[in-house]
Amino acid sequence: MIKAAVLGATGYTGIELIRLINAHPDVSLVLATSESHDGKKISDVHPQFYDQTVLILEKMEPGQVPSTIDVVFCALPHGSSAEAGAVLHKKGFRVIDLSADFRLKNPAVYSQWYNLDHPHPELLECSVYGLPELYKEQVKNAGLIANPGCYPTGIILALAPLLKNNMIDLKSIIIDAKSGVSGAGRAPKQPFHFPECTENFKAYRVASHQHTPEIEQELSRLAENQLKVTFTPHLVPMIRGILSTIYLKLNKEQSESELNNLYLDFYGGSPFVRILKPPALPETRFVRGSNYCDLALKLDSRTGQLIIFSAIDNLVKGAAGQAVQNMNLMFGFSETAGLGQTAH
Amino acid sequence: MIKAAVLGATGYTGIELIRLINAHPDVSLVLATSESHDGKKISDVHPQFYDQTVLILEKMEPGQVPSTIDVVFCALPHGSSAEAGAVLHKKGFRVIDLSADFRLKNPAVYSQWYNLDHPHPELLECSVYGLPELYKEQVKNAGLIANPGCYPTGIILALAPLLKNNMIDLKSIIIDAKSGVSGAGRAPKQPFHFPECTENFKAYRVASHQHTPEIEQELSRLAENQLKVTFTPHLVPMIRGILSTIYLKLNKEQSESELNNLYLDFYGGSPFVRILKPPALPETRFVRGSNYCDLALKLDSRTGQLIIFSAIDNLVKGAAGQAVQNMNLMFGFSETAGLGQTAH
Amino acid sequence: MIKAAVLGATGYTGIELIRLINAHPDVSLVLATSESHDGKKISDVHPQFYDQTVLILEKMEPGQVPSTIDVVFCALPHGSSAEAGAVLHKKGFRVIDLSADFRLKNPAVYSQWYNLDHPHPELLECSVYGLPELYKEQVKNAGLIANPGCYPTGIILALAPLLKNNMIDLKSIIIDAKSGVSGAGRAPKQPFHFPECTENFKAYRVASHQHTPEIEQELSRLAENQLKVTFTPHLVPMIRGILSTIYLKLNKEQSESELNNLYLDFYGGSPFVRILKPPALPETRFVRGSNYCDLALKLDSRTGQLIIFSAIDNLVKGAAGQAVQNMNLMFGFSETAGLGQTAH
Amino acid sequence: MIKAAVLGATGYTGIELIRLINAHPDVSLVLATSESHDGKKISDVHPQFYDQTVLILEKMEPGQVPSTIDVVFCALPHGSSAEAGAVLHKKGFRVIDLSADFRLKNPAVYSQWYNLDHPHPELLECSVYGLPELYKEQVKNAGLIANPGCYPTGIILALAPLLKNNMIDLKSIIIDAKSGVSGAGRAPKQPFHFPECTENFKAYRVASHQHTPEIEQELSRLAENQLKVTFTPHLVPMIRGILSTIYLKLNKEQSESELNNLYLDFYGGSPFVRILKPPALPETRFVRGSNYCDLALKLDSRTGQLIIFSAIDNLVKGAAGQAVQNMNLMFGFSETAGLGQTAH
Repeated sequence: MIKAAVLGATGYTGIELIRLINAHPDVSLVLATSESHDGKKISDVHPQFYDQTVLILEKMEPGQVPSTIDVVFCALPHGSSAEAGAVLHKKGFRVIDLSADFRLKNPAVYSQWYNLDHPHPELLECSVYGLPELYKEQVKNAGLIANPGCYPTGIILALAPLLKNNMIDLKSIIIDAKSGVSGAGRAPKQPFHFPECTENFKAYRVASHQHTPEIEQELSRLAENQLKVTFTPHLVPMIRGILSTIYLKLNKEQSESELNNLYLDFYGGSPFVRILKPPALPETRFVRGSNYCDLALKLDSRTGQLIIFSAIDNLVKGAAGQAVQNMNLMFGFSETAGLGQTAH
Repeated sequence: MIKAAVLGATGYTGIELIRLINAHPDVSLVLATSESHDGKKISDVHPQFYDQTVLILEKMEPGQVPSTIDVVFCALPHGSSAEAGAVLHKKGFRVIDLSADFRLKNPAVYSQWYNLDHPHPELLECSVYGLPELYKEQVKNAGLIANPGCYPTGIILALAPLLKNNMIDLKSIIIDAKSGVSGAGRAPKQPFHFPECTENFKAYRVASHQHTPEIEQELSRLAENQLKVTFTPHLVPMIRGILSTIYLKLNKEQSESELNNLYLDFYGGSPFVRILKPPALPETRFVRGSNYCDLALKLDSRTGQLIIFSAIDNLVKGAAGQAVQNMNLMFGFSETAGLGQTAH
Repeated sequence: MIKAAVLGATGYTGIELIRLINAHPDVSLVLATSESHDGKKISDVHPQFYDQTVLILEKMEPGQVPSTIDVVFCALPHGSSAEAGAVLHKKGFRVIDLSADFRLKNPAVYSQWYNLDHPHPELLECSVYGLPELYKEQVKNAGLIANPGCYPTGIILALAPLLKNNMIDLKSIIIDAKSGVSGAGRAPKQPFHFPECTENFKAYRVASHQHTPEIEQELSRLAENQLKVTFTPHLVPMIRGILSTIYLKLNKEQSESELNNLYLDFYGGSPFVRILKPPALPETRFVRGSNYCDLALKLDSRTGQLIIFSAIDNLVKGAAGQAVQNMNLMFGFSETAGLGQTAH
Repeated sequence: MIKAAVLGATGYTGIELIRLINAHPDVSLVLATSESHDGKKISDVHPQFYDQTVLILEKMEPGQVPSTIDVVFCALPHGSSAEAGAVLHKKGFRVIDLSADFRLKNPAVYSQWYNLDHPHPELLECSVYGLPELYKEQVKNAGLIANPGCYPTGIILALAPLLKNNMIDLKSIIIDAKSGVSGAGRAPKQPFHFPECTENFKAYRVASHQHTPEIEQELSRLAENQLKVTFTPHLVPMIRGILSTIYLKLNKEQSESELNNLYLDFYGGSPFVRILKPPALPETRFVRGSNYCDLALKLDSRTGQLIIFSAIDNLVKGAAGQAVQNMNLMFGFSETAGLGQTAH
């Protein structure tokens, strides 16, 4: 039984970490920090935990985290997460950071998209991009994990097999993504006020979403070639889930069944990626609350476009679940430990 | 064509007033005020009005409202509405106030439930409670209308025929009411943040909701007897609509059909109250966006309870539509002018 | 590891049973039957189970269930469940029936409310009403469990401490209940068609819902006195959850804190009943997907009414979760085994 | 005052026609037919019309429609609408057909996508595609209007200015469209059952939706060049609204402001197309219940993609509202008569 801490325990990612760690057979949550709810029980803030945990939220500086802790999950806002991560990493903690702070390798790109000078650019090289399906070995040995963003997770998994095999016209990638509202965080704001959010559908941050450089960095790395994508996020009136619809042109002709076999093969050892049997298509409800990424491919024979569909739960595979999966690998647990939830 | 002003034009009630006045054949909206959006077009704040009105929102003190205006709708927050109403009333404007400030006749009760000393108790007696189905003549001649609250509107209409006829055991009234989220106003707050509001149902302000004294005042007036009610509001994950389920004991035995005839009779001259034909029951979607109040009665023959169901759109019959209905009566227009919308 | 079968595996109750049994440490699902999907994989019908189970749905008569099975969950329609239960019970299987067929002790009452002559009235006496918080010892030794209805579960738990202590004016009970749509089952019907169900709120089956006699039977048994209740179900536009708002008069004066202590005491040994600390109120989202029943009490000091709020997930504590809880007791497992889910 | 008939009055399109015709100053609805509700009042089937119309639904063959009727709206299922249209057209009625039966000029294409031999191919040439923004003069004189499909309406309006000016790389068009559930019609089916439809997002009929050939026919006509599109429809958990996100490459460089001016110019005389002022983006709620099509353009300067957003209410501008707009032009009424609704 290892000991875990969650820094920033009351946002949606923090809550989801607590839910998953509580259900984990090999981990015990011993510390949960909160800036604004110091001294309250977790269940005072989130009554679903009533009777499930007696942990008291504490306001605590990263430097004060007790050395008996085995793994620290950082679910702090961008910027402060980098500060905390640096302190903890220096002290030798194994850190899984759920912010964007350690994902981008180029600090200039970080500054440009996050409007912030990176406080610890020296750590960008040593952090591991925690997408276990692609970087399992690096994850196992990592001291500092940059847990991937929600949109990037579903998109990179959808494209990796083709990029690795150099099968895509790299100028052709268009990503039309749709996310549930929990992706916007827990702070109440006008666009997420129920009467203005339900019964509505819209795009937002068109051609300017901060996940774009993360997507491009990782797809370029897979392609071994610099590429750019058109990425358009939309807001769906539902709590959880991302469906990404990805359009691209292949380099050479492939049948749908060849493509399916390629994907089945590529993800043969990945317990959380499911390649749906045609003509099934992903629906976000089939992954809701679970750590799966569901994928399907469809060739539009009339136009030659390949269309890939990818569905995840943004709070699980897109955040807390993936963080637990990374922890499992780092500590030698079964990759699926504590992550067996069925969508419901 | 009369000229109308809306003070507080960017909250949900203000927007709804603009929507209804724009569609009204006899009224022209010439002034819309806003504290926080001074100088913007209405459609800059509420894009649904794009191409529908070129009116510019203005920050304006009540005292500056031009005397050419025929009717002023006050949709300001409680407290400031009383101040504005007093100024405007003194200057001779006909005022329809949509706040709670002129509804309660007893300033002590107002202080108790709204935590505020009433700034103009002298106006409480001269204001008319603007429920046209009950006080049509007073409304016609009113200088200052207290437009009823959303919960009280549906509840008073549901009980008036029985109370007027002295048919209720006055100690028996229990009101279990359910409202859509727009009733909570437009300011984003945690309980109305989409991920915490959708897929959820709860009660709130149990035994302490500020509409309780308004309901009791008006029911007591109809009963010519002081009465108290148990009133429990709940929050429904939908934008608009209130369904009130009201339980009571009759003073003497009545058949469902006798009761229905009583209601049909009582509301024979009321174009916006619909007594549904048994066994039909109200649903909020059948009044959504319209000025109707739908009523149905059901006797539980096993227990002797009478159950009355009442449905309104909280923003229309429960606020802006009723205000327009009051204006129609005040200015001699057809009671239904501009209010012919079908639910959709 | 015991072996379980689910008869009627593709309705909402059946799916939920599979979800919970899959997550249970001591039980293995070895048989899942379906009338209409014979030969398909469970995940062909419910893709959320993709990669989670390879079980094939089978069309099978109850008489053919292999004797190696330890426990049979019957999630069949009313009427056929009684037939199946009788066959299985006679063969010596331990049966947990999730239909209404074994809940009512009086076959005449069953006929009246379900429009069906009971095919096996002789079994009504030997079946155990499976509400573990009240009948734990009987459940442990039961051969045939009548798993309680969804509405009755939340309502009976809310009232049991007071009835057991003879504290309620038995003529005063009014139950205003609100349920999510999954309670209506999986067959598509007009009232549950998305565009007519979302953004809507309504009552249904007023004074005639088939759960009424079950509620009255069990409350009367607790009161040791025949009683009747007014019960009004409503439909909430959400998938899961029931909130019941219960109004009653106490026999003698009690403070809120005395009442709370009574409840804390009464449910001290019941891991799935949570008495919320005042002024907290239950919300269905805090029990969504979990086996909890959350309770809160509020005295309206102005009217003397006691108001009790009860929240459950209708598919978990109101159906499949409670069935698993019963199984845990029947087979000597921990009462909470496999039921540790946190709401999300 | 002209006289109108609606054939097929109880589906969502039929209901919406009744709502709009009831609110129209120059038209009187005198006949509403229904196969399955013969003899019932409209309000028996759709209680929102209670007290708004006393019209009785009638089962009636197209040949029996009285000759006193001035305009017939056909809202019948595909196939039967062609039969009815043919009979009515022959008898000299002016017909607005809301099915797909007269939209495709090539009967072979109709057979291929609708799995049906067209019963009256001879009428395909004389029918007018009723998109008033593009074909106003033809609409004015039309005897038989093919009212456009919901997806095609928003998509064609989004692309017309560019295609007319030959500014698009015709091989580059990708349309990612998202629709509310009312687009699927009123018959209850599993995918639209509330618990399986809410809190979910998915694509459907990928590369095979029957609106594809209609979109291609009309875009090709505008381009004066045969073109194909990749068209992917998705289902949004909301009642009404379509947002289409359209990706394309321009033939030559253009600034966003040049493009905006082109659109403002092109739609200068079109009261129902609103070109939003950058950086505003369409949201379906801003057109809900109204006849507007809101458009916005965004150049992704990093990738060179032009992205066009188009929002309509599928039941209004995408069906019944557009039909009324066509009728207005056919009978010399103001184009906007009866169509002034503000979204709410």
